[in-house]
Amino acid sequence: MKILTNTLKCIEPLNKEAIRNASDRLDSLTKPIGSLGEIENIIARMAGITGKVHNKIKKKNIVIMCSDNGVIVEGVSNCPKSVTATVTNNFTKEITGVYVLSKFAGSDITVVDVGVDADFNNDKIINKKVAYGTMNMMKGPAMTKEQTIKAIEAGITTVDDLVAKGYDLFGTGEMGVGNTATSSAILSVFSGLDVDITVGKGSGITQEQYINKKRVIKKSIEINRPDKNDVIDVLSKVGGFDIAGLCGCFLSAAKNRVPIVIDGFISSAAALCAYKLNPLVIGYIFASHLSAEPGAAFIMNEMGLKPMLNLNMRLGEGSGCPLAFNIIEAALFTMDNMGTFEDAALDSRKYIDIRKNAIG
Amino acid sequence: MKILTNTLKCIEPLNKEAIRNASDRLDSLTKPIGSLGEIENIIARMAGITGKVHNKIKKKNIVIMCSDNGVIVEGVSNCPKSVTATVTNNFTKEITGVYVLSKFAGSDITVVDVGVDADFNNDKIINKKVAYGTMNMMKGPAMTKEQTIKAIEAGITTVDDLVAKGYDLFGTGEMGVGNTATSSAILSVFSGLDVDITVGKGSGITQEQYINKKRVIKKSIEINRPDKNDVIDVLSKVGGFDIAGLCGCFLSAAKNRVPIVIDGFISSAAALCAYKLNPLVIGYIFASHLSAEPGAAFIMNEMGLKPMLNLNMRLGEGSGCPLAFNIIEAALFTMDNMGTFEDAALDSRKYIDIRKNAIG
Repeated sequence: MKILTNTLKCIEPLNKEAIRNASDRLDSLTKPIGSLGEIENIIARMAGITGKVHNKIKKKNIVIMCSDNGVIVEGVSNCPKSVTATVTNNFTKEITGVYVLSKFAGSDITVVDVGVDADFNNDKIINKKVAYGTMNMMKGPAMTKEQTIKAIEAGITTVDDLVAKGYDLFGTGEMGVGNTATSSAILSVFSGLDVDITVGKGSGITQEQYINKKRVIKKSIEINRPDKNDVIDVLSKVGGFDIAGLCGCFLSAAKNRVPIVIDGFISSAAALCAYKLNPLVIGYIFASHLSAEPGAAFIMNEMGLKPMLNLNMRLGEGSGCPLAFNIIEAALFTMDNMGTFEDAALDSRKYIDIRKNAIG
Repeated sequence: MKILTNTLKCIEPLNKEAIRNASDRLDSLTKPIGSLGEIENIIARMAGITGKVHNKIKKKNIVIMCSDNGVIVEGVSNCPKSVTATVTNNFTKEITGVYVLSKFAGSDITVVDVGVDADFNNDKIINKKVAYGTMNMMKGPAMTKEQTIKAIEAGITTVDDLVAKGYDLFGTGEMGVGNTATSSAILSVFSGLDVDITVGKGSGITQEQYINKKRVIKKSIEINRPDKNDVIDVLSKVGGFDIAGLCGCFLSAAKNRVPIVIDGFISSAAALCAYKLNPLVIGYIFASHLSAEPGAAFIMNEMGLKPMLNLNMRLGEGSGCPLAFNIIEAALFTMDNMGTFEDAALDSRKYIDIRKNAIG
């Protein structure tokens, strides 16, 4: 509990002066004011995070939290539970989507067992196992509050350690059969939205299974009655170790003043939990893509985030993050290398007048 | 005219067998079927373009068509006309947004003067000038039909020459003060949509100027009465050399079976013209980002394209293309490097069953 409490206390707002200085510099570059859109927002926010106007990413890492969900005995997923352990292990081979895309983007990955129902004989998997999977949330809380905090703290210490090793841009991934169900449950509790809106087909289920999935999530919420004003209560009752662990990753990144990227629906749900624990976290979070899961857009709206990419992806694993890393790095490169109005022999006043009078 | 006619004749459909083979390979990779969304569509379409299941980009180039628009005397833009020539020249320095982003993505750029109202003493600018700017479309046709065809053919020969030099992925950029006005006019003519919907603020104008811009475009369409079933008629009456030139780039790319990427609103309008000239062109076109210009989304819908990025950019120049290049290359890298179900020790039948029964 102490790690979590301290982390929450140490999260500070973005550096407003650095944001202002970065914005001034952006407005001096040879382009109509604001015309690089989100690229400019990324640049300004990075300045707010680090306190420096110019930034360069040194080392990137995608933290993948892996765990099992007891609720899958209710048939919320088409995948057998064993897929969690198999894919967790496969992350350490060079074959998964997130590995390949990370390699393309020059990013490392960190695989954490925070609650898989299997033992690994693999030193590339960090063992932070809280338990061998959660309990079935349709029968009662998925985790105890102590387990929930332990999982969050597993995420915090993982990112703390990576920051100490020089990583300065993070992504968030996960593997856990059934975790679109827990993510939908969390979203429904926080937002009050009906399961008809928050529940999607995950990695692919039949119509019959879809109806069942919604029934299971609804029932899990009814039975557990999570208190939406108590994040730990929500996470413990209808969440999972993976979501709790990722929630900790977001908190640590904010505490350490390093940017962290959301992948899909599950890491969105984790980001939402972190945001509810401390709203300042949001300044440090970037959204990569809009997941094909229907609930993802609601979470983005809730946090006021705009995904950079619209690729209809629903693989999870953290696979959207490397693509976002690339855009963030392109943005920082632009800030460093574009010329100013002076370099361009253009009259900047023309553009500044535009900004003052511009519509829309 | 002969170059255009021949080009239109030589455009062939995508290779369906290669698409099928690529899709089969994608379905054998260790992920739920279709879960990489648009990444999978990019991979399959690239196979259809080249006829090969595995593809690698060798050389990338963004072709920037630069020209002036006579209509700017009506006050449709806040920028003085001289900005076209200044920025065209600046493309050959290392300071513009498109240059910097291209450098980040490892792309070259090609600057073409297809109708700037200035003479350049710069051997980095390809001189394909049709005239020193178009006429004022509010008083009559912007170009003659001969000029229009000459500008389209300037685009065709530019890309033809670059393909001969080994370039195999293209982007499209432009510079021309007033060209959001001509693009809006083209969209209004083809779609029948009112100028209230198709006209945006371009590089930034006041409310008063915005009302004037819509009036000018409406009037230009009324006076010229372009025939929406005759692309050359539409382009010549309310288009510009830049849009015609880019239209030629799209046609040449399709003829040469190389992929070509749309940037923002202006290159979208050019792509729409190419598509109307020969619908097969669409197979070779990728959309990079959804421009902040309101008409852009309508053009995307019209052509059934989904932009990969959502960055609220409105710089033009081709600046969205390098970011899309990166995603295309990431997609091709994924196809080459991801493991199969066999590599992953996962049961592929599980996933194939999902696809057969999946909802949505």
